[in-house]
Amino acid sequence: MTSPVAALVLATERGDRAALAQLLTIVESGGARARAALAALAPAASESAAVVGITGAPGVGKSTLTSGVVAHLRRGGEPVAVIAVDPSSEFSGGAMLGDRVRMQDHDTDGGVFVRSMATRGELGGLSRAAPHAVRVLGAAGYPWVIIETVGVGQVEVAVAQTADTTVVVVTPGWGDAVQASKAGLLEIGDIFVVNKADRTGAEQTSRDLQEMLGGGSPRAWVPPVVHTVATERAGIAELCDAVVEHRRYLDRSGELAERRRRRVQHELRAIVVEQLARRADELCRGATFDRVLTRLAAGTLDPSTAASELLGEGSPARVDREG
Amino acid sequence: MTSPVAALVLATERGDRAALAQLLTIVESGGARARAALAALAPAASESAAVVGITGAPGVGKSTLTSGVVAHLRRGGEPVAVIAVDPSSEFSGGAMLGDRVRMQDHDTDGGVFVRSMATRGELGGLSRAAPHAVRVLGAAGYPWVIIETVGVGQVEVAVAQTADTTVVVVTPGWGDAVQASKAGLLEIGDIFVVNKADRTGAEQTSRDLQEMLGGGSPRAWVPPVVHTVATERAGIAELCDAVVEHRRYLDRSGELAERRRRRVQHELRAIVVEQLARRADELCRGATFDRVLTRLAAGTLDPSTAASELLGEGSPARVDREG
Repeated sequence: MTSPVAALVLATERGDRAALAQLLTIVESGGARARAALAALAPAASESAAVVGITGAPGVGKSTLTSGVVAHLRRGGEPVAVIAVDPSSEFSGGAMLGDRVRMQDHDTDGGVFVRSMATRGELGGLSRAAPHAVRVLGAAGYPWVIIETVGVGQVEVAVAQTADTTVVVVTPGWGDAVQASKAGLLEIGDIFVVNKADRTGAEQTSRDLQEMLGGGSPRAWVPPVVHTVATERAGIAELCDAVVEHRRYLDRSGELAERRRRRVQHELRAIVVEQLARRADELCRGATFDRVLTRLAAGTLDPSTAASELLGEGSPARVDREG
Repeated sequence: MTSPVAALVLATERGDRAALAQLLTIVESGGARARAALAALAPAASESAAVVGITGAPGVGKSTLTSGVVAHLRRGGEPVAVIAVDPSSEFSGGAMLGDRVRMQDHDTDGGVFVRSMATRGELGGLSRAAPHAVRVLGAAGYPWVIIETVGVGQVEVAVAQTADTTVVVVTPGWGDAVQASKAGLLEIGDIFVVNKADRTGAEQTSRDLQEMLGGGSPRAWVPPVVHTVATERAGIAELCDAVVEHRRYLDRSGELAERRRRRVQHELRAIVVEQLARRADELCRGATFDRVLTRLAAGTLDPSTAASELLGEGSPARVDREG
């Protein structure tokens, strides 16, 4: 006897793309079904995939670059999954539509799976959904998972917490490196790409980046700066080499285990917070809440005792003695 | 035997201003001591004060207006408490410093108590702290509590959820009424003030407001538009009359009970959410968390079961059958 969720997991593991898409929807939505799905997946599912995050400001050419990386990896014969994180339509709707159009290069390639993930402004949702999605894609047998996101707000930080290797993309131009620095992208980048490198200022941007990255204490991994012209697929092989090199470094240094521990830590914390937030929602509605609220509004109950009653705790008078 | 918190409550009720200040700090900070303090206060403490919110964009003259209202109320002999909500220094640091300077008009008046409340970007914190502070000030015997806040972001909504009467302040100028509308201030205002009404365009702004307010279904309370020149204390008496008139309306219509029920509802919900957030923090650190995390990172445990272990729930396999 298998549950519908367990059946979806089995189908996903056998390579059924429709089942994979359904399973991703389930884990992204959270709640009881998501937890059932996660429990049904092999616990080590997310270990098998190399997760590469690609981030940068709107307009730097991330999606063309991603498409080029996918094409390069596909020449090696391995399947590739892409998660395109769409941080609400208001500031990137057009770009993401463009992304999907460009990713159509791979539409007829059964070895490429593309998934858009809307964040709807819920950063907590993305923090939870991205590592869950990596688990599902690992179970589906994808050795490469690319997470492409717009480097605005704090979305890229959540993604960097999920990726093994984070690629930060900038374009030539005065102050671009400084902008990346301000956005906190210098800290999260394992590899930097100066895309549209046929434009004026590419060398200067590269030097700016290297200067900013070189500061501080000596590091075991110094992020390389790669020049690309994604529209012509120039520099893509060098970028992919850098990704493989970074992965070797992670393995060799033991940092891969550390990063994955950090990833599951964020994943676990996100589930716990989600569960408790649901509990708060449940407690703050219904007949019991209304009864407590009426006594509170009538001034016959204080808010602290009211909260204790809802939370099923003892009287806060006990706490008082500690005060 | 009285606890330190209970002693502070007693001293506050006797009119000790230092005890009042300490008690406000305790309830603003949240946690066990805040809950002990709330339990020690008379449950109906917050019922006794008339709570007036004064909000509007930076630069409209809210603090001069507040100072004028305080002076007017003081002429009636009743004590007045002012809570100045400071939504992080970055966009209003200077203004709030100015506020405090202007409120020094009342520094030597023992019947006026001024308190700054920093929100540090935590909207949840303000939602909780403002109604708690009203409780404490009610217990201290203040019949008037004025909450002054900058009408940016969603802070003013949280404040409106706490106030009995919300005063929205605008200045003359093309589009000012439209700006207020965009900021969602039209919905929350019970009284509108056109301050700096000696400037060109005051009448037009007033007409714009009345037109926007007049739309929609007929209402039991049509928000009046009052003209003031706060720097000259002109129109302050009319504003105070409008506040008293609105209060009579609230009493007469039964809406006061409804608003106060809404206030305690937000207060209660904020405590429940805070308690569960603290629980999430506790669960996500310490030896048990580390042990679960190690098994999760090793791939011998799935995140759903890991979360269940931390939350002390049964296996999610039970949930699976529902899936």
